[in-house]
Amino acid sequence: MSAQAPAKSKTPDILVVNDDGITAPGIRNLIEVVRHFGNVTVVAPDKPQSGMGHAITVGKPLRLDKVHLQIDTTHSLELWACNGTPADCVKLATGVVLKHKPDLIVSGINHGSNSSISIFYSGTMSAAMEGTIEGIPSIGFSLCDYKMDADFTASRAVVHTLVAQALEHSLPVNTVLNVNIPKLPLGEIKGIKITRQSIGRYVEEFDKRVDPYGRDYYWLSGHYVNEDHGEDTDEWALTNGYVSVCPAQIDITSHYAMPVLNQWNLQMQAVAPLANSL
Amino acid sequence: MSAQAPAKSKTPDILVVNDDGITAPGIRNLIEVVRHFGNVTVVAPDKPQSGMGHAITVGKPLRLDKVHLQIDTTHSLELWACNGTPADCVKLATGVVLKHKPDLIVSGINHGSNSSISIFYSGTMSAAMEGTIEGIPSIGFSLCDYKMDADFTASRAVVHTLVAQALEHSLPVNTVLNVNIPKLPLGEIKGIKITRQSIGRYVEEFDKRVDPYGRDYYWLSGHYVNEDHGEDTDEWALTNGYVSVCPAQIDITSHYAMPVLNQWNLQMQAVAPLANSL
Repeated sequence: MSAQAPAKSKTPDILVVNDDGITAPGIRNLIEVVRHFGNVTVVAPDKPQSGMGHAITVGKPLRLDKVHLQIDTTHSLELWACNGTPADCVKLATGVVLKHKPDLIVSGINHGSNSSISIFYSGTMSAAMEGTIEGIPSIGFSLCDYKMDADFTASRAVVHTLVAQALEHSLPVNTVLNVNIPKLPLGEIKGIKITRQSIGRYVEEFDKRVDPYGRDYYWLSGHYVNEDHGEDTDEWALTNGYVSVCPAQIDITSHYAMPVLNQWNLQMQAVAPLANSL
Repeated sequence: MSAQAPAKSKTPDILVVNDDGITAPGIRNLIEVVRHFGNVTVVAPDKPQSGMGHAITVGKPLRLDKVHLQIDTTHSLELWACNGTPADCVKLATGVVLKHKPDLIVSGINHGSNSSISIFYSGTMSAAMEGTIEGIPSIGFSLCDYKMDADFTASRAVVHTLVAQALEHSLPVNTVLNVNIPKLPLGEIKGIKITRQSIGRYVEEFDKRVDPYGRDYYWLSGHYVNEDHGEDTDEWALTNGYVSVCPAQIDITSHYAMPVLNQWNLQMQAVAPLANSL
């Protein structure tokens, strides 16, 4: 089992990103914990970017602005606010701000779950995956509580435990950690479980309305349906009072599909353009 | 090997989406081919959405507008233009326009490659993956030519072959097809290969400029570096004159990482809030 090289320097460089934007309580809690482990650089979106998935900004210029965050009464930190997506923040952090790869990237703490299929929609996780694509050990943290005034006490303990372990052992190659924390007091959390991604999906409900000008518009809403009842999944862990640590990979080849597809008839024949094509 | 249920009706319902927007030549070529296989519904972004990854629109209203596309001198089609992302288009298509699941979703034909790691950045592929998440057989098509006036002759033959096979056999469950077509005349394409995702990454180069107001801004650019020299990958196929059909899965658990992570010390301890926290 090969692993990415552990941090060599005694004081590791840690990059902090998120998708709820630079002013969210979640990132402040994350910064507060990881700054005890190393030199912290923060590059985060200047506004909330939830649901941005792995979007990157092409065709528009990117901006980086230095802002000042008062951590507590005696400490402050200079941060970089970016007008781009969470994945852009990682690219700009390594390419422009740091000009080298940090030893660890932590993303979050997201206000809301990113378990199961939500990994694909999540800006928090796409920032972490971008780090993994660039060969940097990366972890995304999410608390299953959408409220802005959520209690991050348990989350802080989870971050502390996992960052310590990630800096000591590094991470398996091409693997990102999707960490989800149940909405429970620390004392009621049963422990941390290594899990697999639950198979599920969102059932969409579109709320159709009419604007003051008579035009229809739609609000996307919906609820998650778990179709996977295994007791080794991220959803099972969260429902049963555990923190879920689900390792995800960036090689998503469906190897089991290959022999099936190799039985298809893959002979090509020209398809003539329509005779009366415009 | 279980497969998704093949289309039952004699005339399958086919949903067409893309990320280059409803006016792109790629989607017009895709429509022209698939309309010979079934009832076609088109829901596509009203503007280019390249690089949108699996972004979805939360917190903003979505719009759907009926537009008219003249396919050739005698045929026209009513399409739906959407102000959202490619993934939004699929959600709106199944939830609002069709109000049922189509038999097949085809996305593209993208102007530009989506092989290897680009699957994560690609709006084309995220629309197809959204279909797969919803349990609908889905295929994304990309031509390795960014030009708007690219030659889609070979791509049309590829679409014809693969749509015929997908409607006949359906697709393995939870698997999406990432089809990339080399920029070659049909006669020079050696065939269609089932491939695995090449491991590679983009090396970013940020072009730093100063705007007329004296503020810095950055253009994201870069080039792909292939770090995988296997002869069974999508990159190898494309470089060697083959169409690549790479099956990708929506369960991206890194199973090989689980025993490694289970050796970590996962005991949690409370991390006290800073005494002088604001």
